[in-house]
This record gives sequence, structure tokens and C-alpha cells, in this order.
Amino acid sequence: MPDKPLATVRPVEEATASPRVAAIFADIRATKKLDFVPNFWRVLATDPDHLELIWTRLKAIMHPEASGRPSRLDPLTREIIALAVSSTNGCPYCVHSHTAAVRKLGLDVQGLGEVMAVVGLFNATNAIAHGYQIEPDVFPPQD
Amino acid sequence: MPDKPLATVRPVEEATASPRVAAIFADIRATKKLDFVPNFWRVLATDPDHLELIWTRLKAIMHPEASGRPSRLDPLTREIIALAVSSTNGCPYCVHSHTAAVRKLGLDVQGLGEVMAVVGLFNATNAIAHGYQIEPDVFPPQD
Amino acid sequence: MPDKPLATVRPVEEATASPRVAAIFADIRATKKLDFVPNFWRVLATDPDHLELIWTRLKAIMHPEASGRPSRLDPLTREIIALAVSSTNGCPYCVHSHTAAVRKLGLDVQGLGEVMAVVGLFNATNAIAHGYQIEPDVFPPQD
Amino acid sequence: MPDKPLATVRPVEEATASPRVAAIFADIRATKKLDFVPNFWRVLATDPDHLELIWTRLKAIMHPEASGRPSRLDPLTREIIALAVSSTNGCPYCVHSHTAAVRKLGLDVQGLGEVMAVVGLFNATNAIAHGYQIEPDVFPPQD
Amino acid sequence: MPDKPLATVRPVEEATASPRVAAIFADIRATKKLDFVPNFWRVLATDPDHLELIWTRLKAIMHPEASGRPSRLDPLTREIIALAVSSTNGCPYCVHSHTAAVRKLGLDVQGLGEVMAVVGLFNATNAIAHGYQIEPDVFPPQD
Amino acid sequence: MPDKPLATVRPVEEATASPRVAAIFADIRATKKLDFVPNFWRVLATDPDHLELIWTRLKAIMHPEASGRPSRLDPLTREIIALAVSSTNGCPYCVHSHTAAVRKLGLDVQGLGEVMAVVGLFNATNAIAHGYQIEPDVFPPQD
Repeated sequence: MPDKPLATVRPVEEATASPRVAAIFADIRATKKLDFVPNFWRVLATDPDHLELIWTRLKAIMHPEASGRPSRLDPLTREIIALAVSSTNGCPYCVHSHTAAVRKLGLDVQGLGEVMAVVGLFNATNAIAHGYQIEPDVFPPQD
Repeated sequence: MPDKPLATVRPVEEATASPRVAAIFADIRATKKLDFVPNFWRVLATDPDHLELIWTRLKAIMHPEASGRPSRLDPLTREIIALAVSSTNGCPYCVHSHTAAVRKLGLDVQGLGEVMAVVGLFNATNAIAHGYQIEPDVFPPQD
Repeated sequence: MPDKPLATVRPVEEATASPRVAAIFADIRATKKLDFVPNFWRVLATDPDHLELIWTRLKAIMHPEASGRPSRLDPLTREIIALAVSSTNGCPYCVHSHTAAVRKLGLDVQGLGEVMAVVGLFNATNAIAHGYQIEPDVFPPQD
Repeated sequence: MPDKPLATVRPVEEATASPRVAAIFADIRATKKLDFVPNFWRVLATDPDHLELIWTRLKAIMHPEASGRPSRLDPLTREIIALAVSSTNGCPYCVHSHTAAVRKLGLDVQGLGEVMAVVGLFNATNAIAHGYQIEPDVFPPQD
Repeated sequence: MPDKPLATVRPVEEATASPRVAAIFADIRATKKLDFVPNFWRVLATDPDHLELIWTRLKAIMHPEASGRPSRLDPLTREIIALAVSSTNGCPYCVHSHTAAVRKLGLDVQGLGEVMAVVGLFNATNAIAHGYQIEPDVFPPQD
Repeated sequence: MPDKPLATVRPVEEATASPRVAAIFADIRATKKLDFVPNFWRVLATDPDHLELIWTRLKAIMHPEASGRPSRLDPLTREIIALAVSSTNGCPYCVHSHTAAVRKLGLDVQGLGEVMAVVGLFNATNAIAHGYQIEPDVFPPQD
């Protein structure tokens, strides 16, 4: 038995994946330009329906260029949002993964520091706004 | 007595602010190009030391141009991070405030939809990564 | 201007929805056996791509019978999970929506009390396990 | 000194527990049909009053059959709620513990995948509902 | 039908409470020296077992003097912890309730500002520590 | 390559810190009476502007005596709030750090148990108040 906890399910090995799973793994490697399949996808593959649902959704949102859809957000901004959410939620897997992505997309250590400064600041102001139950300034909804 | 809860302290009125608080209010209006002082700052003003601490930090992080410091992030990206954090934490005051800011900086309703799509997606994957306790892929720390 | 904040975008009216959006609205009404389109979907409709992504995922996960897929979980259990997550995250919209769903599926006020008792208990033990940084008991991952 | 952090207090050993603590440990083993006392309870035992408070509450809520009380929820549903809450909060100890419990109660890896799909989905929709500040559909409270 | 959402269940009226519930309501009023029963307890009373479980636990933890138990924490410190937790979780009901309690116990508006400053600060540093995945400094567990 | 993930950036070594960073490190050691610079500050030092912003804010809030400012809160209460926030957010680094601080300030294992009892209790009641969407009791804001 291992001396520290691993994931609660056994990740699917690339070598032994079913054809359906192997096709999704290949699409992940190609779309994300990776030379391995990250653990997240290997764990999701224990439920192939879920793997497919999450991968097709993530591909549509994070890689719109793959289907020729235009986007208001550039790839770095999307990964910065992912890192901000993951830092707020305290998800170790996700922080490591999205930090690697923002670095690969060109953000240097100073830029990472600025992201963390903004993330830290608004986690503070969120708690303060909650803690005083401050009433929203009223803005009309916009089209 | 009001028939619904207001903030837990009485916001400081601009007209009756002390000189120290009034000077900070004036800096907020000028730096943020607003024609009113948002409730957040009026509530913080009940503790002038805290008002000053948060305002000087927020000004340094969100308005680096005011002190001539260069930044890797543009103003819209910073406000998008603020909105992503506030949506993840579920802070009504903050969501209203940062949505107004991103709209003012030019993000249209389609762009807002894309931000929400990314925020929603990674709140999902964070919970899934937590829920399976997926082990991080190992990347070396970077300088 | 309204005297209290509304959603940050204007929800799409059923009467004026585009054909693409109207078709999704009709599927929501039919699949969920509702006589109105909830605000959640009317707000998402401001970004039709996002509306479609979320609705198709939610339909696949929450209404597997609509596509003939078998499921280990019954509809009430799925809605109870949704309510547990929404209570933990403190989402007012979602709590109202999923409470209505569990009641419609037959859970009475006593059953709702039991759900809340379990939700409250494990939010407590989660914070305590975090607060002492208790090391996990080691179980091997399972197929 | 250890080379990685352990719990912040030293868990109480079963062999050296005081009579009061040993009696609770025995009740935990018997009620939960375990052949060891999980770390959670061994850490709580550093404050015997707290151990007793949490154990008696958990026993009443999670093991109502032990006191002959009827319940609307079956044991698997209760553990699924615990896992959903723990995944949302990102509690490693708790995820390992409740995953082991749902597996022991018969949920297979496909069923676990369905639970994670629902948990992930509603963490997404919660953030989206927060992020747009969607107004609740109005349902009257029910008896 | 109301024009804004109320609690999802109808709170129990003091005048029509069952004898079991009325006895707990009386204990709440006496222990907390209140001249009304807060909504929290009136809602929990829809499930009398849950009401009793939560009240007896809260009474033991927050009012140890009622059972003659000594405590390392004074009443104001306990309520400050409650307010810090509620601000972090963004719980409107709880923030209003615990702010009223700390004020009644003598904390003035400046003291409240200091609590909010500490709460805000550590919500920031928590997100930053998460966001860089900073390794804990190693301290041995203590008895 | 390491066999487990480290922080996502390489912490700055005390021996090779720039003069600006070294001066802040010296202030941290002196103000906090520590014989080492904790990892948190060594990681922040990868962005010296951010290091300075966070340290000066933390010093002002947590060590008001260093600038002769009076405070309504004593040092132990401030660290207890920090621990309550960190336990609620599930931040491993922060829990270890603030537990060491409260122990150094004299809280024994029984006192730590009481803090955890209060933290656990209000994480439970927060989720329950959210889960029923309980309406706040109305208190007027106070000066």
C-alpha cells in the first residue's frame, strides 16, 4: 500500500486506453500541443462519458480557434482567469497546470506576481464587502 | 427601522467626511474617474486607517500608471481577474462593481459571456480535481 | 433606474428570442416540464454559444433518460447533490431552484432538514480537518 | 524533525487513550464497522469535549439507525452528500474518507464519475449565477 | 406570491410551536438574553431533531458557562471568530447576526474595522499561498 | 526533476537577495522575532513590489505596536482570526503558520480545540443559513 494518498481512482494508462478514450487523448495532445496526457484527463477517463463531456466543453471554451469561432479573449487572458479561479479555490492540481500554461504563453515571473497581487487584493475586498454586507451601488443591467 | 438589512455600519457621507477621509475620497474619484464615491469606500471610511491601507494598495495594484510603474497586465485584464474572483466567491457588491468596470473598459455582452464561460468551466474542473484528489503533473518551479 | 440591483445583463425575453435561442428554450421547458423559462437560462441566452454549451451539458448529466443513457443515480439524488453544492457555495439563485426541484421530486420538509443536517455537518468537519491539517488515512485507489 | 508537515497536533494513540476517549473510539469502531480509528477522530481526541460533541452529532445524523430513528435518506445518499460537500470545499482528508465510504456502500467507478459530473456542473452554474447576479425565480416557501 | 424570495421553508411561529420546540425557543431566549427568537432557529424548527442537535451543540460551544465548563476563550473572541468565518464564507444572515453580537459585547466601529482588516488580509494571503502553492514551513506537531 | 510539486516559482534565498529584498527580510525577522524568513515571504520576493505591498500592509495590521498605533485587538486574537480564516479556506501553508503563531502566543492544545470547535460550528451554520436562504433578522446599522 502506498505511504501517501494517491488519486481516489486509478488513472487510465495511455497504452491501454479503449479506442474511444484513446481518440480523445489524441485530440487533447494535439489541441494542447502536449507530449503527454495530463493526470486530470487520465482520471476522468475512468468514466468515458464524463471525459467526453468535459473535454468537448473545455475545447469549445478554451480553444475556440479549433472550430473557427472568433473570441473576444486571447489565450493568455483565458489561462489567467483559470489561474485566478484556481488560486481562489485553492486547487493544487489546477494551480500547477494553469501556471505552466501562462508561463508557456509568455507571462514572466513579474507578470505572475501581478496576477497574484490582483487575485489577493480582490479576495481581500470580497471578504470585506461580505463582512460589512455593503449594499451594491446601483447600475442598470446592460444589453 | 428599515424593513431589509442595510450594511452593518452607516456609510460615511461625502459631505460630512473628515479632511483626511475627504482627501482619500477625492483621490478615489480622480483616479477612478467616477462622479460618486462607491459604497465600499464610504463604509471603509468608518475606520480611516483601514480606508487608507486598502485604497493605497488598490491604487498601487490596479492603477500602476498613477505612479508611473510599468505593468505586464492591461486595465481590462486586471478587472477581468477581479470579476473572476468575485464570481467565484459569490460577492454581490463586487460582481456589480467589476462588471460595470469591464463594460466601461469596452467588454461587450458577448465578451462578458466568454468570461463567465471560463469562470464556470474552471470552477467545475477545480471541484472535480479536488473530488478525485488528482495528483499534480510535475513541473519544476521557474525563475 | 431600479432601486435595487438586478442581474448585470438584461435577460432575454421568451417572446423576442432568436430562433436558435427559442429552440433551446423550448427544449428546456419540455425536458424540465416547466411552464416558464427560468432566469438562469434567460440570462445565459445573452451569449447563445454559452447557453447551448451549458444546456447540452446539463441535459446530458441531469436528464440522461432523455438520451436513453443508463444512470447509477436517480433524479432526486442528483438534485440533492446540486442543493448540497449550492448550499456550500452560498448561491441564492441555485438554492431556490434546487430546493424547488427536490420538493417537486417528493422530498418533504423533514427530508430537507436531513439534507441540511448532513450539509452542515460536513462543512464543519471539512473546516476542522483543514484547521488541524489532518493527514488522510491511506486507502489505495480503486478501479 | 519531519521533512514534511504533519497534522498540527499529535494524534492520540489508541493504546494510550484515556478511558473516556477509549470508550468513544470503541463506539466509532463499532458503529462504523472499522478495524482502526481514523486520524480525524484521533486528532479530535486532543480535546475530549470536542471529540464527544462531534461524534455524538455525526452519529445522530449519519447513523440514525443506531438510535432507532427513521430517516428519509439512505446511507449511500448521505455519504454522497458528504463527498459533494468535501469536493466543493477541496478537503483532501474528507474526500479520501467519503470516497472510501461510498465505494464500500456499493458505488462503482462509473457511479463515482456521475457524482463528480453533477458536482462539477453545479460548481460551474453556481459561479455563473453569482457572476451575473441572476435574480431568483420566485417560489413561495413551503411547509 | 411574494415579489422577492423568502426562506425556502416557512419559519415556525413562536405562538404555534409544539411543546418540544417551544422549550428550545425558551432556552434560546434565556441563554442568549434575547427578546425574540431569531429566524435561524425558527427555520431549523421545521425539523425539530435538527433544531435540537444544532442548539445543544451551539450552546455547549458558545455558552460553556451555562454548563459550568471552563473556557480558554472569552465570549467576544468566540463571536469574532464567528464573524470572521461568516465574512469569509459570505453568509448575509450570519454576518448580520454576529455583527450584532460583537457590538453588544462592546466592540466599537473601530474594533470592527480592525477585525475586517485582519479578515481581509488573510483572505488575500490565503489566495496568494494557494496561487503559488507555497510549501509549508515545517513545524513539528505539538501536544 | 522533483518527484512532487514544489512552489510554482523558486523562492528567493536569503543569501542572494537584492539589497531592497534583504532589507524587507531583515524587517520581517525583527518584527516577527523569527530566526528564519518563512517561505511565504521568500516566494513573494520573486516580485519585490508585491513583497513590499503585502509586508507593509501585514505589518500595519498585525503589528500596530511597531508604529505606535493603539489597537482594540490583542496579538493572540488577531492570530486566532487568521487561523479561523485559513481553516475555512483550507490553506495548508497558512494553517501551519498561524497555528505555530497561536501556540507561541500561549494558546494550549485545549484552547486550539476550542477555536476549531467554533470554526467548525459556524462553517456548519453558514451552510445551513445559505441552504435555507434564511432572511436576516433586521438590525439597524450602527455608528
